[in-house]
Amino acid sequence: MLNLAELDIPIAGVLDEQLEEVAVILERQLASDLSPVNGLCRHVEQYRGKRLRPILVLLSGLATCKVRDGSGLTERHRVLAAVVEMIHMATLVHDDVLDEAQIRRGVVTLNYLRGNESAVMLGDYLISNAFHLCSRLMDPQINLCLGNVTNTLCEGELLQLHHRDDLDIDEATYREIVARKTASLIGECCRLGALVSDAQPAVLDSMYRFGTKLGIAFQIQDDLLDITGDEAVVGKSLHRDLGSGKVTLPLIRYLASADAREATEVRRLFAEGRVEKLRLRLIESGAVQDARREAEQLIEQAKTLLGAVRGDAARELLATLADAVISRRF
Amino acid sequence: MLNLAELDIPIAGVLDEQLEEVAVILERQLASDLSPVNGLCRHVEQYRGKRLRPILVLLSGLATCKVRDGSGLTERHRVLAAVVEMIHMATLVHDDVLDEAQIRRGVVTLNYLRGNESAVMLGDYLISNAFHLCSRLMDPQINLCLGNVTNTLCEGELLQLHHRDDLDIDEATYREIVARKTASLIGECCRLGALVSDAQPAVLDSMYRFGTKLGIAFQIQDDLLDITGDEAVVGKSLHRDLGSGKVTLPLIRYLASADAREATEVRRLFAEGRVEKLRLRLIESGAVQDARREAEQLIEQAKTLLGAVRGDAARELLATLADAVISRRF
Repeated sequence: MLNLAELDIPIAGVLDEQLEEVAVILERQLASDLSPVNGLCRHVEQYRGKRLRPILVLLSGLATCKVRDGSGLTERHRVLAAVVEMIHMATLVHDDVLDEAQIRRGVVTLNYLRGNESAVMLGDYLISNAFHLCSRLMDPQINLCLGNVTNTLCEGELLQLHHRDDLDIDEATYREIVARKTASLIGECCRLGALVSDAQPAVLDSMYRFGTKLGIAFQIQDDLLDITGDEAVVGKSLHRDLGSGKVTLPLIRYLASADAREATEVRRLFAEGRVEKLRLRLIESGAVQDARREAEQLIEQAKTLLGAVRGDAARELLATLADAVISRRF
Repeated sequence: MLNLAELDIPIAGVLDEQLEEVAVILERQLASDLSPVNGLCRHVEQYRGKRLRPILVLLSGLATCKVRDGSGLTERHRVLAAVVEMIHMATLVHDDVLDEAQIRRGVVTLNYLRGNESAVMLGDYLISNAFHLCSRLMDPQINLCLGNVTNTLCEGELLQLHHRDDLDIDEATYREIVARKTASLIGECCRLGALVSDAQPAVLDSMYRFGTKLGIAFQIQDDLLDITGDEAVVGKSLHRDLGSGKVTLPLIRYLASADAREATEVRRLFAEGRVEKLRLRLIESGAVQDARREAEQLIEQAKTLLGAVRGDAARELLATLADAVISRRF
């Protein structure tokens, strides 16, 4: 999503080095004395793709710390970055079980390779390790935040399951789902990165709001890619949302503005699982474009919030990252 | 398992009252502002059965605290008791997904009622809430212990899955699985109950060893009930271990002592999933009785370890509970 090696700014190099250290922390945490467990962990480590969440922890830490030369990150930032990546990995592993997905970031999924049982248990192991690693910071406040955000994340997923196949879902409920299942963790990545940098409360608040807006835009883009993406580029099975009864923003917008005849027809296509026809309708009607504009507006609002932040280079990179969230093709 | 109302000792009444308060803490922690989430939580709260883990936290706390009149338990003990019960509930919900179970403690399982997706997510929600509740104790050391024990628990489950259908599994590996997946949490319940009562290190160590021996015996008894139990009394689907390729102690002992002809025949019955014939063979050969004796010995050893404990009434109740672990019919 963000090719750090291609960015000709010194802070990108710092970030790249720090991410290497985060990967080492993550790998060490997941080292078990049981070789079958290690085999499963090595497999899911291959999923690591965009690394959005650890990047946000580190960049938020850099952008809000007192020193400006890129040396402001501590072991606490890196541990936290590994923790949020591990939580994200756990959600991927369990999502793949729910979606019966076969491919994730171009790699065969664990559920496909070893069965649902191992995938459910390995997801639990990743959640558990995330909390264990977080507890090693010996900071009860961070543990409490993390427990809170994973509660919220699960609530979002459960609310989404509750509204499966529900074509009467309104935009407020869709936003509630996305705010909880995706934006809560991304917002907390930005806030906690700044917290560990000892930023002021007003800055923490801005970073959290930046992250949640970015998170909602990120999820909208994810939903759009499921409709318009290229499977080879995205690296996972596509067109699954519509096929599995997950109603996302383009469809909600379409139904809100369609006339009675159009709405009835699209409802029928959805009920019959005619995904290809449905996709084309959403693209040609402008509903996809409409949802894309919504994501763009969120990113503009998010970037405005970065005014509260001091670190120029890191702030610039956060803004670049925000743009990449909606321009990405995977 | 232990009918507190029937026990004519004052400490049983104290324990019963405390368990009511634990149930309130648990219910409050699981109160979401989203009604679909609450509906799912209310459903799994019906599973609560033996309450072995919270009882062990409370009794270990009572048996090792300074006062002897039953007034030594604090809010910290009760929170911890709710935390371990929540972890146990999460494992039940995920186990039922893995086992495709339809009945749990006489209640229809969540996976059967609402599908695997909701069950996987609700299990995650319970794990997350357990960590969140634990974090509210603001004691990093307890968080670290909890993360450690849930890591171990998942490793045990993963090791068990790795050895599914493995008739060459030896007794040492079986013990490793049971020690991790069951005894680790039960041992930690006893140790942490005493830790919160400010017990001395030697007492903590005895309580942990008491709990792990009790835990292994508990799992052996669980495995025996799967072979010999009465479905109506046990309250869950039985004969599943043999049918799903889970090799437990009676079968391991049988194969270790059988002659070549008998072993070949039993391996064939196992491969063909002829559970009824296999069950009878294990019962009639004495292998079941052999495993039962092993559990009895562990309980005797566990009770000896209670010598280090001061609270007479609570200690007596711990010993009664230890006996009930292997005499139980459900």
